Amino acid sequence: MGGDREPIRLGLAGLGTVGAGVAKIVRRNAAALAAKAGRPVAISAVCARTRDKDRGVPLDAYAWEDDPVVLARRSDVDILVELMGGSDGPALAATEAALDAGKDVVTANKAMLAIHGQALAERAEANGATIRFEAAVAGGIPVMKALTEGLAANGLTRVMGVMNGTCNYILTRMEDGGLPYDEVFAEAKALGYLEADPTLDVGGIDAGHKLALLAAVAFGTRVDFGGIGIEGIERISIEDIRQAAELGYRVKLLGVARMSGRGLEASMAPCLVPTDSPLGQLEGATNMVVLEGDQVGQIVLRGAGAGEGPTASAVMGDVMDLARGCRVPTFGQSAGHLVAAAPARATLPAPYYLRMALADRPGALAKVAAVLGEAGVSIDRMRQTRHEAGEAPVLIVTHPTTRAALDAALAGMEGTGVVLAAPVALRIEQV
Amino acid sequence: MGGDREPIRLGLAGLGTVGAGVAKIVRRNAAALAAKAGRPVAISAVCARTRDKDRGVPLDAYAWEDDPVVLARRSDVDILVELMGGSDGPALAATEAALDAGKDVVTANKAMLAIHGQALAERAEANGATIRFEAAVAGGIPVMKALTEGLAANGLTRVMGVMNGTCNYILTRMEDGGLPYDEVFAEAKALGYLEADPTLDVGGIDAGHKLALLAAVAFGTRVDFGGIGIEGIERISIEDIRQAAELGYRVKLLGVARMSGRGLEASMAPCLVPTDSPLGQLEGATNMVVLEGDQVGQIVLRGAGAGEGPTASAVMGDVMDLARGCRVPTFGQSAGHLVAAAPARATLPAPYYLRMALADRPGALAKVAAVLGEAGVSIDRMRQTRHEAGEAPVLIVTHPTTRAALDAALAGMEGTGVVLAAPVALRIEQV
Repeated sequence: MGGDREPIRLGLAGLGTVGAGVAKIVRRNAAALAAKAGRPVAISAVCARTRDKDRGVPLDAYAWEDDPVVLARRSDVDILVELMGGSDGPALAATEAALDAGKDVVTANKAMLAIHGQALAERAEANGATIRFEAAVAGGIPVMKALTEGLAANGLTRVMGVMNGTCNYILTRMEDGGLPYDEVFAEAKALGYLEADPTLDVGGIDAGHKLALLAAVAFGTRVDFGGIGIEGIERISIEDIRQAAELGYRVKLLGVARMSGRGLEASMAPCLVPTDSPLGQLEGATNMVVLEGDQVGQIVLRGAGAGEGPTASAVMGDVMDLARGCRVPTFGQSAGHLVAAAPARATLPAPYYLRMALADRPGALAKVAAVLGEAGVSIDRMRQTRHEAGEAPVLIVTHPTTRAALDAALAGMEGTGVVLAAPVALRIEQV
Repeated sequence: MGGDREPIRLGLAGLGTVGAGVAKIVRRNAAALAAKAGRPVAISAVCARTRDKDRGVPLDAYAWEDDPVVLARRSDVDILVELMGGSDGPALAATEAALDAGKDVVTANKAMLAIHGQALAERAEANGATIRFEAAVAGGIPVMKALTEGLAANGLTRVMGVMNGTCNYILTRMEDGGLPYDEVFAEAKALGYLEADPTLDVGGIDAGHKLALLAAVAFGTRVDFGGIGIEGIERISIEDIRQAAELGYRVKLLGVARMSGRGLEASMAPCLVPTDSPLGQLEGATNMVVLEGDQVGQIVLRGAGAGEGPTASAVMGDVMDLARGCRVPTFGQSAGHLVAAAPARATLPAPYYLRMALADRPGALAKVAAVLGEAGVSIDRMRQTRHEAGEAPVLIVTHPTTRAALDAALAGMEGTGVVLAAPVALRIEQV
């Protein structure tokens, strides 16, 4: 331990915010890193689209490569640190090249792993390599480590997470400012908080990628992004936030995954969580992940989900593990052991919050109530919030019901002719 | 990875709640553990004071040893799992025997490591072994792993923790029930929540042991329990809890460690924390640790700090790391690199809450105010809460001041002759 003084040598592909952050840590904290790893941590070569750009850290001492695949194959590179992003293209090509050369890969690329994770894990294993991706899930929070290693002796019963800071910022800001979604969305865009394609954020896709990775490790399943039910926050109104608050809840874009007899139930969707729970108390861009194990009970982890420092911290945590000789299989066990779980819709009954606009005419409410009753969905609370020209906004909280029963009711409502638009339906998650 | 099919063999010393929990996990989750570790996890031999006792799990398949030192030296034991407790005696003897034989040790023994940690880490290193102690700090929360590994690339700026569930239970219960300390203490004792020597809990010693271990890893220092300023919760009154609540704070037995130019500032003492912070929202026996790094910012970890399942989960997480071949130095770096930091009192100014009883006579308050002023402590708020026979209870919140200035003021108050008992002084910690 600590006897091996050969440096561990990084090839750094991608010099955006996070890549520059990694270079800064390697440079500034060299002595501490070497003391902790028992060997120096060095960068051999770097690679980015543009060479001439001030990144706030000197890079002249490192070899430059234009092609990340060439970088990955260099004989003086032990670990490929992939920070380019994108599910395919150069990131995937470089990762495959590194693995084929028997080199470990550290990446922050949630999209690549959510799509190609199983194939890459198999490829890593075939070559005696491994992939680490702490930075891909909830930024600086060491959640993959907690789940894969710290809780390794647990059977996981549920994992949950608020893992898109932008969405949580938007929802918090709508609530605090009493502002409509469109206005806060425009504000977030102007502040540069949104991805180039904002659907990745507000559509729940980015957070869905993260949930796919969490679920694979938690339940020993092949990562399956396509099996996750994804809904974004675009239809959440300030009215939903206000009504939820009156009921003692807050609206969060919440990922939930659990294994049931039917298969893996995983969804990333706006949910109501109790205001006085840790998830309900989460403000702004902060992330939170909740891990529930049969031995440990509930573990809650909270921290920054993005940004240069936090993400670089996570990347370097993985690098330090590899430098120390800790090499855990990509998804916590042999890729060949991971099972292909059937994606399943939520089977555990939960209460739901429904908001809809009814045609303002006699008998409309009765028709909706009848449809719910026929589907076996019973009503806990119902409220007509106010009246507008020709529209009667109605709010319903159901008793616990299955998603299948709820979907049957929602389908039935279309046929009544009194529901003016598809209702907003939000699960109330018991946390 | 996963190619080595030789089992990893445990010698389990101590068959109390946690030891039995470990045996249950090894038995019931054998397949999952083997899949994740890439090799079977087996128990070779066990040891406890009493052999004939139903521990809720069959132990007949394992060899029995009466002497834990003999257990530690068995040729069929790869890892000593030390769950006997006690800072010296059999636990220390067995740990030393295992290390001398080049075997790794997994322990939940915070007292032993807080007292003998440096010597044991050196002994481990000299023999090519390591000691893992996740279960010793905050029970099931994987905080040592987060700090030692996940945040390895950070310079830590502060670590904080509510790490004695019994104390947090007592404080929460006093608040919820409006009950005096003595009554809740008796209740906790009747419920079996207290150690045989309750001073370990309510005196802050148990939590202080944990803080000593956190601080050593966070700041790269030799573990130094004696350098921690420890105060218990025995003098906290329901009046303190009520006054704190009115000011927007809650009282927590909070450990805080930071490194300053003067040395390691570490204290375990009742503090006021903002009611709307994660620490302020903590209820009952739940533990919370806050890690602050120069890269990652603030990470908050919350979970069960005690109990069979959570503690066994932490023990087995360590075992799984060793089974996977991950062997990190005991305190995160070579024991020889750890520095002997001078213990220092808090140098960063903080506001303080002071409660005292003054003699009910003219000029008493003026004398106290004068003493504070002479010591350079300025008053933010002062309140005489009510009047009792001969006593005037007074509450003061100071502006931020150093502990040295406050101590000078407290010493000066004794000389006034109007302060009827030593004031209760609680730091208001900015979290």
